[in-house]
Amino acid sequence: MEILLDCVPCLLEQALKGSRLATNDKKIQEEIIKDAIEILGDYKSYKTSPELARAIHQSIKLKTGLSDPYVQIKEKDLEAAKSVYPMLKDFLERVDNKLYWALKIAATGNNLDAAIYGNVDINECIEKELEKKFAINDFNIFHSKLETANSILIIGDNTGETIFDKVLIENIANINVTYAVRSEPIINDATIKEAVSSELHHVAEVISSGCNAPGLILDECSDEFLKAYRNADIIISKGQGNYEALSEVKNIFFLLKAKCSMIAGRLNVELNDYILKYSGKE
Amino acid sequence: MEILLDCVPCLLEQALKGSRLATNDKKIQEEIIKDAIEILGDYKSYKTSPELARAIHQSIKLKTGLSDPYVQIKEKDLEAAKSVYPMLKDFLERVDNKLYWALKIAATGNNLDAAIYGNVDINECIEKELEKKFAINDFNIFHSKLETANSILIIGDNTGETIFDKVLIENIANINVTYAVRSEPIINDATIKEAVSSELHHVAEVISSGCNAPGLILDECSDEFLKAYRNADIIISKGQGNYEALSEVKNIFFLLKAKCSMIAGRLNVELNDYILKYSGKE
Repeated sequence: MEILLDCVPCLLEQALKGSRLATNDKKIQEEIIKDAIEILGDYKSYKTSPELARAIHQSIKLKTGLSDPYVQIKEKDLEAAKSVYPMLKDFLERVDNKLYWALKIAATGNNLDAAIYGNVDINECIEKELEKKFAINDFNIFHSKLETANSILIIGDNTGETIFDKVLIENIANINVTYAVRSEPIINDATIKEAVSSELHHVAEVISSGCNAPGLILDECSDEFLKAYRNADIIISKGQGNYEALSEVKNIFFLLKAKCSMIAGRLNVELNDYILKYSGKE
Repeated sequence: MEILLDCVPCLLEQALKGSRLATNDKKIQEEIIKDAIEILGDYKSYKTSPELARAIHQSIKLKTGLSDPYVQIKEKDLEAAKSVYPMLKDFLERVDNKLYWALKIAATGNNLDAAIYGNVDINECIEKELEKKFAINDFNIFHSKLETANSILIIGDNTGETIFDKVLIENIANINVTYAVRSEPIINDATIKEAVSSELHHVAEVISSGCNAPGLILDECSDEFLKAYRNADIIISKGQGNYEALSEVKNIFFLLKAKCSMIAGRLNVELNDYILKYSGKE
């Protein structure tokens, strides 16, 4: 998906929030904003919004000397997600179409997005959010593909969301699942560390994608990831950043909440709608 | 008031909204954003936010060739304000402390702010907004000063708000009122044209301040304005832009709605609170 003009002020706002999260030093915050303005002045030389966001968040790391400025938010989100895990399992016990609702649980985990919402209290919104159905619902295609599939690749997104994804994986029997994460900390996205803290390695093969942007850029991925990508019978891309980076790619299921009006507009849904969208055959 | 880091992304968002209001040509919108990024990169060389906003909105005029990009919003807001004028007069008939509520009506007119709210439907919100009292209430000081005053200077703000200000002026008897407006169109601020369309010249002497920023910068004002400013027994500054430009100046009554959290924070009130604040003796 191309960078829209609306991404530019939104990313500057993100830079400001990120700078304040990373440091209390106002001089460094100012330097980060100055850097962000310079990066955004050159926004046309970036292909997608995740690449632009990466440049801004790399500058936050550089200026503060922190390799993982969102570490505390990630820990908090992970604890919160772990605390609702029994409730998610209980919810799934009570519903009929377990696969549909397991997918919906994974999409609901996409609420744990520090870049957009800042601090999310998942406990407060979880029940209401869980009950909302998909606005774009390619469940039938997913279900039919699953019947003959031997392998699934999930391209992960945020920390905490990982716990919700674990519930989905636990509801897919007898299939090899690979769970790919960012190669290094970027915003609150999951890396190997958070995937392991979520115990995803007990239900899937956890790998690094080799890409450190907050949206998967295929050209930057490792051979290990690309092999899993080519061999997977089903590919699930989680969240907005991965959607922005992969929207033109065929044969992917996009599982996300449309949290910004640009992405909602692109998908032709309402803001905050949930999406299970198949991008079509190659 | 100094420029805060939060002003920077907010003004970039304003530039985007302004560009879309002024033209449908995406190339020109992009050029405006490019200009705005350049201006904001140099934000430290500006003293106050209204000066920075002026630079951005001047670029919108230059790139589109429009001398008054907000002309249609101003016409619409003025019509809407005129349509509620009888209701404002009726409201004032029914209340006890007419001067307090006339000031409150003038503050409520500050809702007509295209820079912040875009398109406001004043009819929808007016009754609820009118009834809210001042969170900072220096009415007693105002009332006591009015008893010996011969002249009042009102520094105007938005178009449409002018009609609300007319109600205030009509409730101040036997005192010379001067109403100062921007020297040329900037955002939806009132100029001589809109002051006359509001029939303010029937109840006050309408003058140009000589300043074309969306907040009154004393150093840029005309001799005519400065004479009225020096001679006025009471000075009322309307709105956020004028507050940002004049916040350090003594002997002014600030009459506004705190529509952004930075200004609310500076005034130590809640977002969207109404303010009648005396800046103190010189």
